[in-house]
Amino acid sequence: MKFPNNKEIIEVAKRIAPYIHRTPVLTSEYFDKRLGANLFFKCENFQKVGAFKSRGAVNAVFSLDDKDAKRGVATHSSGNHAQALARAAALRNIPAYIVMPETAPKVKVAAVKGYGGRVTFCKPTLQAREETLKKIVAETGAMEIHPYDNLKVIAGQATAAMELIEEQPDLDLILCPVGGGGLLSGTALSVHFFSPSTKVIACEPAGADDAYRSFYSGKFVPSIAPKTIADGLLTSLGHFTFPIIRKFVSDIVRVEESDIIEAMQLTYERMKIIIEPSSAVPLATILAKKLDVTGKKVGILISGGNVDLNHLPFDD
Amino acid sequence: MKFPNNKEIIEVAKRIAPYIHRTPVLTSEYFDKRLGANLFFKCENFQKVGAFKSRGAVNAVFSLDDKDAKRGVATHSSGNHAQALARAAALRNIPAYIVMPETAPKVKVAAVKGYGGRVTFCKPTLQAREETLKKIVAETGAMEIHPYDNLKVIAGQATAAMELIEEQPDLDLILCPVGGGGLLSGTALSVHFFSPSTKVIACEPAGADDAYRSFYSGKFVPSIAPKTIADGLLTSLGHFTFPIIRKFVSDIVRVEESDIIEAMQLTYERMKIIIEPSSAVPLATILAKKLDVTGKKVGILISGGNVDLNHLPFDD
Repeated sequence: MKFPNNKEIIEVAKRIAPYIHRTPVLTSEYFDKRLGANLFFKCENFQKVGAFKSRGAVNAVFSLDDKDAKRGVATHSSGNHAQALARAAALRNIPAYIVMPETAPKVKVAAVKGYGGRVTFCKPTLQAREETLKKIVAETGAMEIHPYDNLKVIAGQATAAMELIEEQPDLDLILCPVGGGGLLSGTALSVHFFSPSTKVIACEPAGADDAYRSFYSGKFVPSIAPKTIADGLLTSLGHFTFPIIRKFVSDIVRVEESDIIEAMQLTYERMKIIIEPSSAVPLATILAKKLDVTGKKVGILISGGNVDLNHLPFDD
Repeated sequence: MKFPNNKEIIEVAKRIAPYIHRTPVLTSEYFDKRLGANLFFKCENFQKVGAFKSRGAVNAVFSLDDKDAKRGVATHSSGNHAQALARAAALRNIPAYIVMPETAPKVKVAAVKGYGGRVTFCKPTLQAREETLKKIVAETGAMEIHPYDNLKVIAGQATAAMELIEEQPDLDLILCPVGGGGLLSGTALSVHFFSPSTKVIACEPAGADDAYRSFYSGKFVPSIAPKTIADGLLTSLGHFTFPIIRKFVSDIVRVEESDIIEAMQLTYERMKIIIEPSSAVPLATILAKKLDVTGKKVGILISGGNVDLNHLPFDD
């Protein structure tokens, strides 16, 4: 398998630069003092569409040759990828066909349509989603863009860690949440090429620890009935992401739900930024002492900030 | 009355620099497109203690001569000023006596104590607060530091707008919320000295419009039974703040509660930052078309980010 290399990631960064934000890297005296470490938060919650997904989607769309592009792109997604792909397609003035379960929140459907996405609804099962997508691809000739198991997408996500490394060299660790592994595999590649002495640690909810079990058993374990508030981390690893993660990630650490919620609330209170639950997972692992970072310089990827403000998990 | 002048504000900025953040100025494509304007948000929600109050408190504490300082500082407050003053006193290693109503939220009391503040509780009336404070000042010789009606405090708050002007010159307008007028009068002074072609517009909840009525009647109108979610804007103007505002502020614009809540939620959703309700008031005035900013370059002071996450006003 041919992974994106350093030259490609640098090209990708140039390709997507006009369409994405170079997001800020924030620090927190409170967390630094509490942990005895220096933390650097790469804030993809400030990214276009509110998540790192914009990077991969823009790269996938703008990597197509004109003939393929004309027929459009397609995916099934009810999350950030749907919006990111619709936006990227609109930027290239090509159609985006988005299959969404009929149960998808209205606000997410409206967001996809707001970016010009052509939404097709289906029954809320993986089978219905895949079949509906297949049909649309057959009819339109659109290119399917998988949310994470696509090398162009992975190369796009790699640019977040590349920027973090440019701004903060000599990191001892980079912590990254893992769901399908798109951000994690991209991060691992960038670290391998641009900061090889840095270790990449993946962070995963204990209630959705298929990546942990895959990583340590050495064979793919699917995500079956995951239970976590981190709704960006429910999916299984992919055919591309798993081998990259096996090769370039140092460790996967698991953390409990209550620790994720506490880390999320502390981030809101102390850093005054909105993050989605998935983004709190890395900080949760170190606050809960699942991983010792004392004396270390640590990068943390904040994956996104799309959260339902009407249902924050901070009850009295 | 002798107001702080340009020389003093520049000195103050140097005095407080080691103890405060130079906060970032953020932009939002969404709001810019929606309003046809260029907005620059000065983010004091990222300030120490989560609010601009740190500037004035640090200046007041570090302006004292050693003899006065030794006896400490005192105030009555249940808000951001209490924490900011306790922190500033701790930085100078002097006592801070904070009178708080016995009904003050536990989390706020804990925060003041966390900064080393010596808390005295009293009945939750203004009279009890003032009498208790008077007694403490008499006993200890501590210097009372009013939350806003104090020229050192005003000069400290002035540094926020000064930084904004340094970073974004040629602003047509600066919008600032008004409660007691500490931030507003400081802002008006900085604009007068450092960007005299910029107009300062104060923004006030219609349910707490004493500053509006004072400004347009030309005589002091106290804030009696104000009703607004913007809990930082409940207080009356002061003996120092009112004359500065009369002289240097161009206009005061009022806005309804529903618009404040909508602007606050949109800020969370679109900018991914936590702001307190008071900080949403300026944006609310322009989203609700109480003030036309089309084609203009506009600075907006985000006063703070201390909010009860368990009781956000975003119900379905």
